[in-house]
Amino acid sequence: INLGGGVVTDMGGFIASVFKRGLEFIQIPTTLLGMVDAAIGGKTGIDLGPFKNQLGVFQQPLHVIVDPAFLGTLSEQELMNGYAEMLKHALISDKSLWNELQISSVEDLQVLDLIKRSTSIKMSIVEKDPLEQNIRKLLNFGHTLGHAIEGFLLEKEDPIGHGHAVALGMISETYLSYKKGLLSQADMNEIVARLIAIYPITEMSDDEIEQLVQLCRNDKKNEKNKINCSLLSAIGKGEIDQFVSEAEVREAFQFLFSLNQ
Amino acid sequence: INLGGGVVTDMGGFIASVFKRGLEFIQIPTTLLGMVDAAIGGKTGIDLGPFKNQLGVFQQPLHVIVDPAFLGTLSEQELMNGYAEMLKHALISDKSLWNELQISSVEDLQVLDLIKRSTSIKMSIVEKDPLEQNIRKLLNFGHTLGHAIEGFLLEKEDPIGHGHAVALGMISETYLSYKKGLLSQADMNEIVARLIAIYPITEMSDDEIEQLVQLCRNDKKNEKNKINCSLLSAIGKGEIDQFVSEAEVREAFQFLFSLNQ
Repeated sequence: INLGGGVVTDMGGFIASVFKRGLEFIQIPTTLLGMVDAAIGGKTGIDLGPFKNQLGVFQQPLHVIVDPAFLGTLSEQELMNGYAEMLKHALISDKSLWNELQISSVEDLQVLDLIKRSTSIKMSIVEKDPLEQNIRKLLNFGHTLGHAIEGFLLEKEDPIGHGHAVALGMISETYLSYKKGLLSQADMNEIVARLIAIYPITEMSDDEIEQLVQLCRNDKKNEKNKINCSLLSAIGKGEIDQFVSEAEVREAFQFLFSLNQ
Repeated sequence: INLGGGVVTDMGGFIASVFKRGLEFIQIPTTLLGMVDAAIGGKTGIDLGPFKNQLGVFQQPLHVIVDPAFLGTLSEQELMNGYAEMLKHALISDKSLWNELQISSVEDLQVLDLIKRSTSIKMSIVEKDPLEQNIRKLLNFGHTLGHAIEGFLLEKEDPIGHGHAVALGMISETYLSYKKGLLSQADMNEIVARLIAIYPITEMSDDEIEQLVQLCRNDKKNEKNKINCSLLSAIGKGEIDQFVSEAEVREAFQFLFSLNQ
């Protein structure tokens, strides 16, 4: 029984899956991020140095138990972590949820209905494609560039939350979506404005941006030396298998970190 | 592609199975032990301290390629390692193979027909029960007490081959089969005589035997504090889920090591 946040359910699920060639396990997420994302869908894994989730297996838990009582124990920062994944679910598949998520305070996230809708978006995608052959890749929106940021800052011993990193990844990948002609400028502006209002943009030097670009080259979703992102063609509509070059990734990071004031 | 002996195919198969949540892999065993046992059946794993195969997954390889050309590269000792598993396959399910395996020299093991028959015994068992819920446990004959011996000597930095350890495990588990009234004394004598003629019995003090008994308590096949062995009811007939006490295991080790001259 893995009782805790995403690190606990990811690591505990992985260890259960490989201990004595596999034990059954139950996930009880205690964070908003765990409830709407990490604990559901059967992805387990651990990091390897700065690379996120390099070791892991697909293994569905026996049960996932979501108890809203845990939400009352969370800090505002921890709620914001989960909120980022809820915004992601809305951006890739549900514009009306995006509109409803325009809340004045993260305390409002404790509305169970929003959590249920967010969770059910992920579950319906995972059920159609448990092993991430196609449509499940949608859930990676914000995670290719976001994972690089998260892993880099973890190695630098200046970690940020996964949701915060994903929010930064979504800003830069929204920019990529616009630059590749998929997304309108109006949609880009709306998404970026909302995200920067909530999530602080970290400082990053040109040299550090170069290191982030190199980390993206090791992302496990890549194919044939091209960096594979899931991008947006509209608010509420994701597009998988969008291959981008190193130069485009560099420009997207430059756009993101130029927003740091 | 894992090209090598059982350590390479077990470890390589495990790493492939957990790297980036799973890559496909091909096993090319270069040892007799790998060809008749380790590389087939989809068990992968690594040791954890003195405990054998504590971390692993069930994952079938994409292909297993058996090329008899490698047999010519093996030492006599290495051939004897594989021979032990061939004898095991005969003991649990094929008395006529046991009789044919009465060879005058391990060089004769290069007879491809004997290898094919041994491999097909394992494959037909694995196909019926890939996740070791029932009949696959037959293949564990010799491995409960044998693994304890192998892990103990590895920790002591005085390692013996897996096949050698399994042969010693088969002697002691044959004794257990007899003591539990499953196996006739005549069959026990025939099995023990053949095995001690080939495999040297290592020296083991009473104190060390006690450590072996304790290692058996951690065997991953155990259920409810009883040690679970697969034993024999005849030459060519194995019996799964035979639960034995610590006292019986101690006596079986004492029988085995009393054969050391």
